[in-house]
Amino acid sequence: MKRVKLIVAYDGTAYHGWQVQDNGNTIEAELNKALHTLTGEDIKVSGASRTDAGVHALGNIAVFDTNSPVPGDKFSFALNKVLPADIRVQESAEVAADYHPRFIETRKTYQYTILNRRFELPTKRHYATFAHYNLDVDRMQQAADFLVGEHDFASFCSAGAQVQTTVRTIYKCTVTRVDDEVKISITGNGFLYNMVRIIAGTLMQIGSGLMEPSHMAEIIEAKNRNEAGPTAPAKGLMLVKIQEV
Amino acid sequence: MKRVKLIVAYDGTAYHGWQVQDNGNTIEAELNKALHTLTGEDIKVSGASRTDAGVHALGNIAVFDTNSPVPGDKFSFALNKVLPADIRVQESAEVAADYHPRFIETRKTYQYTILNRRFELPTKRHYATFAHYNLDVDRMQQAADFLVGEHDFASFCSAGAQVQTTVRTIYKCTVTRVDDEVKISITGNGFLYNMVRIIAGTLMQIGSGLMEPSHMAEIIEAKNRNEAGPTAPAKGLMLVKIQEV
Repeated sequence: MKRVKLIVAYDGTAYHGWQVQDNGNTIEAELNKALHTLTGEDIKVSGASRTDAGVHALGNIAVFDTNSPVPGDKFSFALNKVLPADIRVQESAEVAADYHPRFIETRKTYQYTILNRRFELPTKRHYATFAHYNLDVDRMQQAADFLVGEHDFASFCSAGAQVQTTVRTIYKCTVTRVDDEVKISITGNGFLYNMVRIIAGTLMQIGSGLMEPSHMAEIIEAKNRNEAGPTAPAKGLMLVKIQEV
Repeated sequence: MKRVKLIVAYDGTAYHGWQVQDNGNTIEAELNKALHTLTGEDIKVSGASRTDAGVHALGNIAVFDTNSPVPGDKFSFALNKVLPADIRVQESAEVAADYHPRFIETRKTYQYTILNRRFELPTKRHYATFAHYNLDVDRMQQAADFLVGEHDFASFCSAGAQVQTTVRTIYKCTVTRVDDEVKISITGNGFLYNMVRIIAGTLMQIGSGLMEPSHMAEIIEAKNRNEAGPTAPAKGLMLVKIQEV
């Protein structure tokens, strides 16, 4: 028996998110199915981050145990031959038998993309949120600076989430524009349910002039979901990487 | 009666190309249908560039004549309300009654994107050609330099194309890399059937080391399709813009 770690990229457009559900395809279910095809074993992968429906990933992590003779580093090639085209393993490796990405300290980086132009671009429609009104990136960056550090992010957590604490640490949050794309890049030790999408929705309101950048401090202070902006659409969100620290 | 010009962006993934066909959806047919919905008239748009199945556009041009009271510059908004999500008009304007983009001098710019990394990225799979072997961008640029100028591009024209001359002028051809994306940007006064895709396929062979950069001069000289590299896949190709000169 060995434990294998996968770094998985996917286009979340066609999926009901990461986690296995009764109704609808999920990334996890596709990985389980592909591993069954490959090994004949009844394998259930365990993921680092349970991304929502429509959310994309460059580097989510999954682990599983197997008796397969396939070497750990060869699972990437083998799985990519049987997985659907919208899921691709980027790397695979054998890890310690007790390794699990949810039980070690990690830094996760997400990116939220906003297409900011007069009309929507068809080729970006599944990978960015569209905003026709002008977004002021300097205002957004001023507001984003308030997020950095250890804070109680209860204002940025959707109702229904069961967590022991809503305190998280954000190491970095940058807002940059390249042509008509505004990108919010955020790295933290963990994120609450919908946290990045609520931050994105709030930064968009600040960028549009609806809210002042300094209001971000008051939103954090309030610890009340109703004080923050709306939850931005899933399709603009990408899990970029999960780093072990 | 007035003539209206549209600048049209689309995701070509789901279409059998631009031009109306008996079998399969086309961009042209969708525009005709949307204009009929909007005006009640039996309008047939005429395009500047008949892109192939799977090819994308940021700025193709279409013109049509209408008796509709809708002002020329409002067609963009009105059409985008009825068009499918993978086609979006970026701009509309009334033009002279005899204006047609195919009968005036223009410079067309295409971009060909190659995703050059170890494994395919699902979110790019419809918008780039994937190459796992290393592409040397300096070699590709050396070869691309031979294309600039007025040449007979018969070696870069798929069989079956009916054209009066295979002489075209390329004003610019640049090959750049940003991270794992290699982009070929090419501007010319016109392009033969599959010309950009054959250039891309040839540059990929040169970038991979299969051919020397200087061999590009011999390929041009040969005026023989068999001397050039393969036709690169449609999905990596984007019609960026058509400029009037």
